[in-house]
Amino acid sequence: MRAEIITVGTEILLGDIVNTNSQFLAKELANIGIDVYHQGTVGDNETRLIECLNEGLKRSDIIITTGGLGPTKDDMTKEVAAKCFNQELVLYSGIWENIKSYFNKIGLEPTQNNKKQAYFPKDCIILDNPNGTAPGAILKKDNKMIILLPGPPKEMIPMFNNELKNHLLDLTEYKLVSKTLRFFGIGESLLEDKLVDIINNQSNPTIAPYAKEGEVTIRITAKSKDILDANDLIKNVEDKIKSRVGNYIYGYDDTTLDETVAKLVVEKNMTIAVSESCTGGMVSSKLINYPGISQSFLEGCVTYSNEAKMKRLGVKKETLDKYGAVSEETAIEMATGIAKTLNANIGLSTTGIAGPGGGSDEKPVGLVYIGLYINGYVKVKKCNLFGSREKIRSRATSEALNLLRLELIK
Amino acid sequence: MRAEIITVGTEILLGDIVNTNSQFLAKELANIGIDVYHQGTVGDNETRLIECLNEGLKRSDIIITTGGLGPTKDDMTKEVAAKCFNQELVLYSGIWENIKSYFNKIGLEPTQNNKKQAYFPKDCIILDNPNGTAPGAILKKDNKMIILLPGPPKEMIPMFNNELKNHLLDLTEYKLVSKTLRFFGIGESLLEDKLVDIINNQSNPTIAPYAKEGEVTIRITAKSKDILDANDLIKNVEDKIKSRVGNYIYGYDDTTLDETVAKLVVEKNMTIAVSESCTGGMVSSKLINYPGISQSFLEGCVTYSNEAKMKRLGVKKETLDKYGAVSEETAIEMATGIAKTLNANIGLSTTGIAGPGGGSDEKPVGLVYIGLYINGYVKVKKCNLFGSREKIRSRATSEALNLLRLELIK
Repeated sequence: MRAEIITVGTEILLGDIVNTNSQFLAKELANIGIDVYHQGTVGDNETRLIECLNEGLKRSDIIITTGGLGPTKDDMTKEVAAKCFNQELVLYSGIWENIKSYFNKIGLEPTQNNKKQAYFPKDCIILDNPNGTAPGAILKKDNKMIILLPGPPKEMIPMFNNELKNHLLDLTEYKLVSKTLRFFGIGESLLEDKLVDIINNQSNPTIAPYAKEGEVTIRITAKSKDILDANDLIKNVEDKIKSRVGNYIYGYDDTTLDETVAKLVVEKNMTIAVSESCTGGMVSSKLINYPGISQSFLEGCVTYSNEAKMKRLGVKKETLDKYGAVSEETAIEMATGIAKTLNANIGLSTTGIAGPGGGSDEKPVGLVYIGLYINGYVKVKKCNLFGSREKIRSRATSEALNLLRLELIK
Repeated sequence: MRAEIITVGTEILLGDIVNTNSQFLAKELANIGIDVYHQGTVGDNETRLIECLNEGLKRSDIIITTGGLGPTKDDMTKEVAAKCFNQELVLYSGIWENIKSYFNKIGLEPTQNNKKQAYFPKDCIILDNPNGTAPGAILKKDNKMIILLPGPPKEMIPMFNNELKNHLLDLTEYKLVSKTLRFFGIGESLLEDKLVDIINNQSNPTIAPYAKEGEVTIRITAKSKDILDANDLIKNVEDKIKSRVGNYIYGYDDTTLDETVAKLVVEKNMTIAVSESCTGGMVSSKLINYPGISQSFLEGCVTYSNEAKMKRLGVKKETLDKYGAVSEETAIEMATGIAKTLNANIGLSTTGIAGPGGGSDEKPVGLVYIGLYINGYVKVKKCNLFGSREKIRSRATSEALNLLRLELIK
């Protein structure tokens, strides 16, 4: 079984965006056991798109396209694919209803442009898109297939995982089972170093480390005709990994660090208050993303100035004068102050230099202190982070959440 | 002048790495004014590589390859390219000396494999590689060119910038200039609806709408022998677009909405305080991402519970009882409360139902009120948002920032 990936979009040809869709699909197809020998990119141009599809159909069984399913005139992937297979587009009234109600929900009327998104070849398989207005589709003719996926990764990836993957698995006799282990506090290269022999000696399951925004994940993927066998294969490798680096694992699969920490606070029936300087509201925001947090989250406070730190949190003037706003002492007083003011079990604080200016030899950009107060006990963590202002702030947020997590699971 | 980018490497076909080379080259070529209509990826396989090069040579003047210049047997791009042009490889002794001294410098002896890297077609243009052992090359035949670049970006990018770019600039007489208009508050299809005639009647400059995470951009790209002419072409179209939908434009090129708003607050010498419920700190966090905000940002407050809204912001119990926490009235009291407490010029508030639970017929998930207080004047905006909890919160944050922006530019 041979597939070819064609990404459609002028924004890729112009280099405006990196083509991450191809990588995602290539990896998934490799895991399923479908070979990919060609990837291509072409703009929103009918002649060239037809050429590309026809070339691809000569040498591959399946063409997977991403992009060009939008409502505008230059979105034409579906129309061109149907032309290649000599199939006529018909209105799918159910899809049109969905689009209309999608627009109604946001208080808008769909335009006639949007109706275009409800036309598909008769008898094709529709792939639902809960994250946008453009459904995907599987078009078949003889032994060939053209699969149409939307361009935005936020729509394409869930559609692949929830809709398309099973169709593709049906084409092979294997089942694939994956489990993702999520790590915080260990870098990708160190993690790989500690597991290099396990990784190298494995072909089924495969073990794929992946680093993203300060955290590392390992995806274990087993392939078997039987799901139970696949699960056993995963369990075996997972146990080996855990015996070496299990203390860095904070969760599995789609769990996030925010969710893990917020859940712990709620499950322990504790209350929390947050005071932030350099992270400026990101820690509160992450905790509040957990729907069940309302009873536990008492208040958040963005005290960016010294005055606010003193007035709102009771940080002492002497502390700020002697140690500065970015110091262990200030972090502790911020955490303690917000907790005591609100009578919360937990007070969590951040103070640091996010840059690009404001750094010195003694206190460089990226220096961040996390303060934690839990029922009278205090703890502080010093971090030396790097990268852009945004990256430092986001990493500091994760460090704060992880510090709290480690205390809560003690 | 038309170019095609072919990246060679099994690691890309398997999805092990993201193809950033294509993006880099595409962007650079667009800037130079060389059109790219196709990008392709193929593995280290002679038959398929020859096929790809031959196809490309049919439709493009220049093929730029990256990868496959290494010392091992499966590195074959140079050999296959020479075959396509029917050119023989000869030993370039100067290159071989360079390779030997490169190895001496790192205390190693080159292997016979490495000698392969010193062979090139006679009369080709060699592109130096100070960052590795594989030089690049420009091969010419009749009016066609194959340009060979190494795969690792750390070698490829400097080689492009320092060696290849000038050769390419000599080939074209055109300059390309782009400008991006950034919109908020209008969807992609409605925007296109309003501009459809302008878009359809334009070929130079081209007009490309693009939607991403709640905002829409339009990229205008003009091609001309003279940069000033290109700028005029852009200005002309930009003015037409502005006359129809200019009130939705918040910025240009790489500006973000957060930055635009934070800058406005600072430039107007105003002070701001933020009180957030459903966005839980995101509005503060976005403003604080602007490095110059410190003098203007007085304090942020995450008052998720009713108690906090009353205690911290002075929202009246009767208001909460009569209208509920998610209401116009509460939003206004939150914005006014935080501004007055801190004596700030601006108070900005959010309160809403981010879901997934907590919605009712009367107040569904996605209902958000944004409250704004500016020097005694108040304003409130009701939004009906949709999507995941995260999406609703993030969209509400943008709506709050945009409401403030619209007031500040009045």
